[in-house]
Amino acid sequence: MTQEPLVAQLIDSLCCLPGVGPKSAQRMAFHLLERDRNGARRLAHYLTEAADKVGHCSICRNLSEKEVCRLCSNEKRDRSLLCIVEMPTDVQAIEQSTGFQGRYFVLMGHLSPIDGLGPDEIGLNQLATHLDSGKIKEIILATNPTIEGEATAHYIGEMVRSRQIKTTRIAHGVPLGGELEFVDGGTLSHAFSGRREIESSP
Amino acid sequence: MTQEPLVAQLIDSLCCLPGVGPKSAQRMAFHLLERDRNGARRLAHYLTEAADKVGHCSICRNLSEKEVCRLCSNEKRDRSLLCIVEMPTDVQAIEQSTGFQGRYFVLMGHLSPIDGLGPDEIGLNQLATHLDSGKIKEIILATNPTIEGEATAHYIGEMVRSRQIKTTRIAHGVPLGGELEFVDGGTLSHAFSGRREIESSP
Repeated sequence: MTQEPLVAQLIDSLCCLPGVGPKSAQRMAFHLLERDRNGARRLAHYLTEAADKVGHCSICRNLSEKEVCRLCSNEKRDRSLLCIVEMPTDVQAIEQSTGFQGRYFVLMGHLSPIDGLGPDEIGLNQLATHLDSGKIKEIILATNPTIEGEATAHYIGEMVRSRQIKTTRIAHGVPLGGELEFVDGGTLSHAFSGRREIESSP
Repeated sequence: MTQEPLVAQLIDSLCCLPGVGPKSAQRMAFHLLERDRNGARRLAHYLTEAADKVGHCSICRNLSEKEVCRLCSNEKRDRSLLCIVEMPTDVQAIEQSTGFQGRYFVLMGHLSPIDGLGPDEIGLNQLATHLDSGKIKEIILATNPTIEGEATAHYIGEMVRSRQIKTTRIAHGVPLGGELEFVDGGTLSHAFSGRREIESSP
């Protein structure tokens, strides 16, 4: 072992980042020490700050520094539309690309009994109280089109139906710019079964 | 802007890591906040510690917490053999795979006049005092086989020759396990011009 202990520990702790193995961690550590010590200090500062101060919004479960997040405390957002997503990144993606003006509910995962994630762990009891408030007119299910995401969407769909609130699922099909030839069979089959009539121009 | 400010700042500061863009930084930030806050605090601790305490060895210029690094203060290492490399990572690579028992000198870069890196910036004045000490019998040039690395090796080679010390360059050729068909022309040509006679078994 010829590495200096502090450098070795820095490399080891960089490995906690997703997608970073020992080789990349070593490259990162040497880069920071050689070329960007201020960047390293700044990163350290925000890591500590965020780890200590960022919690979850009490309404939508998204990451938030305050008791209630910015989106939930924005009175301009439509309370009657609730979009259900798995992760905070999904909220980001939807905010950045769609004109959605409703509110969100973030499951922070999906149903996965094998990992011990049941309805309570993904906040469905909390969702039930939102549904019972009588303010929500439509639930948009925007979980991922994976097996777990579909199962979660199905489970929530049943919950919502029993309360007679309209439920929709985001459309799945051929992505824009994609070529049919290279699209997988499941997606293509979804695109066919979900086809829509073209409205004739007046 | 719907992101919480602290989360946005954390994502922004993660971008100082090499090879990490906004998308990976976002994934890292959410991963740390959701699943590994202790990892984040530990990383923050070692980033600060390393940025404050790791300096350069006064003898070999490698990263070191002390005035003189572990390798240079190890009396078992042969003082008469000096291996010259570009980066601390190169020292690691050589230590991990070769049985080299000499000492190192780390340039912390290569000659690159365009970036303002001349002989003084890569420590060649310091190297000259080592050469003049009279203890060194062989210099092994292990800079990278890139244009800049070769130019640096050539420059140092001239410095060493004028002092009548033996100089060697690590061998370049076809890597083990490689197939001739897929090796680039420059390497193959190097492998031919650097061919060695096979000693006949007695």
